[in-house]
Amino acid sequence: MNRYDYDLLVIGSGPGGQSAAISAAKLGKRVAIVERKLYVGGASLQTGTIPSKALREAAYLATRSASPGMRGTLHGNTANLPGFLADALSLKNQVVDRKAQQILKELNDYHITLIHGEASFTDAHTCQIIPTNNENNTSTPQHISAAVIILATGSRPRRPDAIPFDKECILDSTSLLKQSDLPESLIVVGGGVIACEFATIFAALGSRVTLVDSHAQVLAYMDADITSVLNENLTAMDIQLLLKTRIKEIRRSDKGVIALTDNGDTLNASALLYALGREPNYSGLNLHYAGLVADDNGWVRINSQYQTSLPHIYIIGDLAGRPSLASTAMEQGRIAVQHAFENEILQNTGLLPMAIYTIPEISYIGATENELIEANIDYVKGTAKYASTARGQIIGDEKGLFKLLVDKTSREILGVHIIGESASELIHVGQMAMTCGAKLEVIANSVYNYPTLAQCYKTAALDCINQLTSS
Amino acid sequence: MNRYDYDLLVIGSGPGGQSAAISAAKLGKRVAIVERKLYVGGASLQTGTIPSKALREAAYLATRSASPGMRGTLHGNTANLPGFLADALSLKNQVVDRKAQQILKELNDYHITLIHGEASFTDAHTCQIIPTNNENNTSTPQHISAAVIILATGSRPRRPDAIPFDKECILDSTSLLKQSDLPESLIVVGGGVIACEFATIFAALGSRVTLVDSHAQVLAYMDADITSVLNENLTAMDIQLLLKTRIKEIRRSDKGVIALTDNGDTLNASALLYALGREPNYSGLNLHYAGLVADDNGWVRINSQYQTSLPHIYIIGDLAGRPSLASTAMEQGRIAVQHAFENEILQNTGLLPMAIYTIPEISYIGATENELIEANIDYVKGTAKYASTARGQIIGDEKGLFKLLVDKTSREILGVHIIGESASELIHVGQMAMTCGAKLEVIANSVYNYPTLAQCYKTAALDCINQLTSS
Repeated sequence: MNRYDYDLLVIGSGPGGQSAAISAAKLGKRVAIVERKLYVGGASLQTGTIPSKALREAAYLATRSASPGMRGTLHGNTANLPGFLADALSLKNQVVDRKAQQILKELNDYHITLIHGEASFTDAHTCQIIPTNNENNTSTPQHISAAVIILATGSRPRRPDAIPFDKECILDSTSLLKQSDLPESLIVVGGGVIACEFATIFAALGSRVTLVDSHAQVLAYMDADITSVLNENLTAMDIQLLLKTRIKEIRRSDKGVIALTDNGDTLNASALLYALGREPNYSGLNLHYAGLVADDNGWVRINSQYQTSLPHIYIIGDLAGRPSLASTAMEQGRIAVQHAFENEILQNTGLLPMAIYTIPEISYIGATENELIEANIDYVKGTAKYASTARGQIIGDEKGLFKLLVDKTSREILGVHIIGESASELIHVGQMAMTCGAKLEVIANSVYNYPTLAQCYKTAALDCINQLTSS
Repeated sequence: MNRYDYDLLVIGSGPGGQSAAISAAKLGKRVAIVERKLYVGGASLQTGTIPSKALREAAYLATRSASPGMRGTLHGNTANLPGFLADALSLKNQVVDRKAQQILKELNDYHITLIHGEASFTDAHTCQIIPTNNENNTSTPQHISAAVIILATGSRPRRPDAIPFDKECILDSTSLLKQSDLPESLIVVGGGVIACEFATIFAALGSRVTLVDSHAQVLAYMDADITSVLNENLTAMDIQLLLKTRIKEIRRSDKGVIALTDNGDTLNASALLYALGREPNYSGLNLHYAGLVADDNGWVRINSQYQTSLPHIYIIGDLAGRPSLASTAMEQGRIAVQHAFENEILQNTGLLPMAIYTIPEISYIGATENELIEANIDYVKGTAKYASTARGQIIGDEKGLFKLLVDKTSREILGVHIIGESASELIHVGQMAMTCGAKLEVIANSVYNYPTLAQCYKTAALDCINQLTSS
């Protein structure tokens, strides 16, 4: 392989790129990773996942601390807000900086070459890299060749031309996270994961939030019991929901922003978050020089090992399409590398958990009730309320709901759906049960620490067993 | 069975008793439950598990809120303390009251007769119950017979005669939880679970804590890596550890309490917690009238289904001996009832998780390294630091440690050991893997939500795989 500069060239230093680079380095490969920005970590670290979750943690603590044991919000207790937002932003910056340091150290420990520059193909095995670490761009581009190339350039917020984004009042999720003042009021356009996360975070921090979405229900693909509890939480946080509503026009006003809806409403707010979708970062890669073509929808086709039509080029992460999660990007990086260098097809369990970091958290795995009904599968549903567990009461999670869906015949677990504190952690117990094909009785007969939220597994499993026994 | 007043008589309304009573009611049995106190729930709810965990939650929030993202303590920020302790105690009372209401409602929903009174055997199937809901004790005792009797009277703090307990300064864990003022300084005698939990809770609330124990290490039966991190945490909380030290004498002083050690030290503090063991509540039951005898150590022998030598009398919970946990008591109640009425031997997985609600939490399941070494089992150990995960950084858990022990040959999980936030919840993922006999690769190849602490499972599993591959 020494005819190439590197065994592996990774483009993009987000979670997927890091995972790919480190996996290959562990196999003893010579690896370079290219990052367009002056910092590492990609959108996940710098503008997306991590900063929003750090802000979420601060906001969550605010709701807890306002009144121990009571899931209050800061409404009516706004005196401390400016100081608290400052704390929240400082926590966010602290976490991002530390994580970036950690990534740099790790790349260095594994002898991975980090190049700051904008990469584009010149042929199927070579990229030209224009340095970005020089303001005058006087450095000459370098050319780097590699036996295997992994594209992990991620995605960015969709920014339609008609929206007058200004980084001050009319914002995308990236620029919202850079505001130093808490908007007194915030319009959130969109009803997806990002829209819901920011709506609850800013409501918890004390903004008056209005969420506008064209659908009849936000996150409607989720299990209906879960969205029902989510709606209760949004209402309890005084978030105004304008559903089945589209925004026709957005413009600046004296005091911030004005949005006109197709229902004829005029909305005024200090700021607006436009959160309708993200777009893959293909531009600038000059894929055609490599010999790759995108399909009609703008995506490059890949197989189950994330390999393109060119066997030595892989695409992972947000650039590979849904589910566009850091967790899956990391897994994809590892799978692509094992396939490229070890000719190994990694057995992934195929069970992908989903987590939504709203306040409260939501997480689920497997099928929803609607999916089971459509597939004509005979199931039983067991539930447990957080409020019925000692720990739920201790942490003051009044609305949390845990739900288990079980096959009536095989008694295997078909789905787990959780809304409430620590949902993203708790889901993995059910995931492990599903991965192992464990039956309902295993969950029911396990002993759970007391007090924990994990006891919901037992309560819901016993609920299922009661129904199966009495029917 | 109608020759008896009830199918089942349960003595004690703690978690074990409740579980037994409800399990039997679900089978359509006529059930009565006797509670000596005027309230329900047993020590777990009223004086032990729940109140201490509610206080712990408030204390934990105090450490978090003092500085978002930084696991600080309230030291140096004592101005808010009185208000905070009041909040903490009010949270505790709130949780206890609500949980008691919930228990009463549940007993009522299942048509279980609740009798407040002191029960003692008159013959093998009959108990005399002296009412306690009447101050003058004018009510006459009633006699209740039952086909099956389950004893679940629990345990109480050991209170040696030589210790001048006074409910003001010289306290056991029950009376400590009833203090309305935070002791400025607190001596904790003992190095077990209860001693360590209270030492960290009161240190987090702002007391200067000195822990005195005769052993060379607190909780020495735990995995050494875990106790090592625990020691770091105790030090960081300014808890003074006096190990290999015994208390010779305890007496009141002007300002609180004086304790003399066998090393010749004189310790002064505002209060002292004596936390050296608990004792089973056998007294008053008049076991001999039933025909039961205790062994030389004071315990009544039971079999694996918690059945005594009299086939219709069962003993569960703290009264059945170790591990004396609410979680196991509940399971034992269910097992005893299934055995008594359905002649069914419940298949328990046998895997018992342990949780210690110190700040931070500790939880573990399976073998320690020492146990594996002694048993001559060839294992590999994988670790993950909380600080290396994004969520660990976000919640500011700097010291958290996750540890996986894996059989080198079979690649099955032998033990999971965690010290850090949410340890008691996270352990259940590993427990499920162990219950299902899942191999290392299943843990490594699963996709975990990002950011979560559960990612430690993957990191530690990959650490194991790296070692197995390179060796």
